[in-house]
Amino acid sequence: MEKLQKGYLFPEISMKHEAHLKKYPDAKVISLGIGDTTEPIPRVITSAMAEYALALSTPEGYQGYGPEQGQMNLRKVIAEKVYPNMGIKESEVFISDGAQCDIARLQMLFGPNVTIAVQDPTFPGYADNGVIVGQTGEADEVGKYAGISYMRCAPENHFFPDLSRVPRTDLRELVDFARRNGSIIVFDAAYAWYVSDEEEAGGGNNKKPRSIYEVPGAREVAIEICSISKFAGFTGVRLGWAVVPVELRYADGSPVARDFDRIVCTCFNGASSVAQAGGLACLATEEGRAAVRRVVGVYKENARVLVDTFASLGKVYGGADSPYVWVRFPGRRSWDVFAEILEKTHVITVPGSGFGPGGEGFVRVSAFNSRDRVLEAAARLRKYLA
Amino acid sequence: MEKLQKGYLFPEISMKHEAHLKKYPDAKVISLGIGDTTEPIPRVITSAMAEYALALSTPEGYQGYGPEQGQMNLRKVIAEKVYPNMGIKESEVFISDGAQCDIARLQMLFGPNVTIAVQDPTFPGYADNGVIVGQTGEADEVGKYAGISYMRCAPENHFFPDLSRVPRTDLRELVDFARRNGSIIVFDAAYAWYVSDEEEAGGGNNKKPRSIYEVPGAREVAIEICSISKFAGFTGVRLGWAVVPVELRYADGSPVARDFDRIVCTCFNGASSVAQAGGLACLATEEGRAAVRRVVGVYKENARVLVDTFASLGKVYGGADSPYVWVRFPGRRSWDVFAEILEKTHVITVPGSGFGPGGEGFVRVSAFNSRDRVLEAAARLRKYLA
Repeated sequence: MEKLQKGYLFPEISMKHEAHLKKYPDAKVISLGIGDTTEPIPRVITSAMAEYALALSTPEGYQGYGPEQGQMNLRKVIAEKVYPNMGIKESEVFISDGAQCDIARLQMLFGPNVTIAVQDPTFPGYADNGVIVGQTGEADEVGKYAGISYMRCAPENHFFPDLSRVPRTDLRELVDFARRNGSIIVFDAAYAWYVSDEEEAGGGNNKKPRSIYEVPGAREVAIEICSISKFAGFTGVRLGWAVVPVELRYADGSPVARDFDRIVCTCFNGASSVAQAGGLACLATEEGRAAVRRVVGVYKENARVLVDTFASLGKVYGGADSPYVWVRFPGRRSWDVFAEILEKTHVITVPGSGFGPGGEGFVRVSAFNSRDRVLEAAARLRKYLA
Repeated sequence: MEKLQKGYLFPEISMKHEAHLKKYPDAKVISLGIGDTTEPIPRVITSAMAEYALALSTPEGYQGYGPEQGQMNLRKVIAEKVYPNMGIKESEVFISDGAQCDIARLQMLFGPNVTIAVQDPTFPGYADNGVIVGQTGEADEVGKYAGISYMRCAPENHFFPDLSRVPRTDLRELVDFARRNGSIIVFDAAYAWYVSDEEEAGGGNNKKPRSIYEVPGAREVAIEICSISKFAGFTGVRLGWAVVPVELRYADGSPVARDFDRIVCTCFNGASSVAQAGGLACLATEEGRAAVRRVVGVYKENARVLVDTFASLGKVYGGADSPYVWVRFPGRRSWDVFAEILEKTHVITVPGSGFGPGGEGFVRVSAFNSRDRVLEAAARLRKYLA
């Protein structure tokens, strides 16, 4: 615990937010910081949760402990609807209370005696959970922990570590690398829903991949974690899953899924049954899926507005198949830019360096807010940049 | 992971249950095994959850991420209603998705370099999570892990390790011991609601303690974990909490609560907001508390029936301030008795040895089932014992 650096990134930003409000009590602060959903959840989903909750008051509808791995009907729907034609079986889907919690459980599973490599920048939970379970030494002055391999991701390599240039080929090379190297890939697909249906540049019938399991051979090397937080607005309701295919085995041939199942049964007790009822309504019917796709569309349009806002700088990345926009401020420190933007525009962003040393010089701007607020923030930011 | 013995106890029992159903497809199996609630949740609670869920579809009612530590109003209600006059502040209450998950998070916090002592028998999650984080060596032939101190609890010492005879004094001695010894007590109060309001035998105004914090000095040495699973029937809905007082400090003077907060923010992301709305309805009003006390009353009466059922054996323990009855079968193996009871009566129990070597020779019988089923099971068991 002592090795962990300062606070966890997002609570740290909350504190800066509160301090700013104390300094400017009348400021209309707009948060484009943490990726927190703001659009209401479609009624078809909340009705299912309400109905499930009310039924818990009846002898017929009451349910106690569910299976630790999640309700089988939900696991089945995920296997069929999220992973069509990818050979994922319902028994390989473990329902969870969100991707962040699965990261911790996976790190508990891996334990201290593994070497991990993370993209840099990346979601801070990966490195931090590695520190907690004892995989690392101390952090150096830029925040790199000894024992973690940081794979630099920057505009120069299309934000993909050293393997290739086109997304599809990237993933294919990653899978091949893991197969040769005896590595396990943990593929975080929490934003898969933001990947457009359009074909990749270059044509062919190469649709952009949303799941690692679209890549041949991935079942033998990859765990995928996912969540409906950013898809259906479940950031507070909490629902996600991990896929651990049976073909994924340790060097001695024993299945990783057996150990993960043991972790889920011992360290966890299943996701809230009410949240699972909501997840089922979201994924099982075309009505549910269409409703949440409309919500995703709102955030994607927000992202487009933000990309345009920063376009004049010429250093803006992402925001196309993602709800986040990364903006580079060459020669400057992320936290300084964060502070300056907050001071001059009352807009909260996230310093890129909070995601790892590779994020230094960037700020991340989130598309998760109402259209009105995003437009207002965009207007203030344009003035600031001018 | 390899050190962990076989399966986790309760999934193991589920498998035996299924195998029995295959052998006797027409048998009316009654489960008095895992402590799984069966009574519907009072309407005042499920209505609050339904209302909260539906509001998530409105711009005013929508909420994204809540605080990782839980909603402040719920933390406040717990501090006030569950810990009246015990000096617990809302900031010391960390809302969770249940006690089992908090056990895992606490073991992540403690890490591999501590020595733990567990009551024997005990809930299996304590030792198992210790094994997972690397606190132990291998298990021996009776299932004791090297490195864990097993504190034998048996009828001879009133199921309390070596300290004293009367409950109140027990806890006081435990706290004093921890203070002298520099130990941290993790007090699992998941069944506190089953402790009667009656005074202790011996009179005086000594009410039986429900919380470790009723004992002077406990704030400096004890963490309490709790849950409304067994109180309000939230086994599937998932809601609990941990109390980590600010006075609890490491040897170097730094507060344990700061590290636990970091664990909660990094490895977890808060309990489901819908479950929290239910917890608030359960605890905030006298109406909610009275409703769930009635449910607890049903299970307590079931426990009384089960104690009577086994009374002829003369070796029956618990069932008074607890929903579980422990029955001793001297000279026999727990799993053999479990199998014989299942074979002859189609009643599922839990082998005491599943809770540690000190449970060998016992079976545990749970009062969590409908009154009808408990009466039917009691009739079959009487016939079996006769």
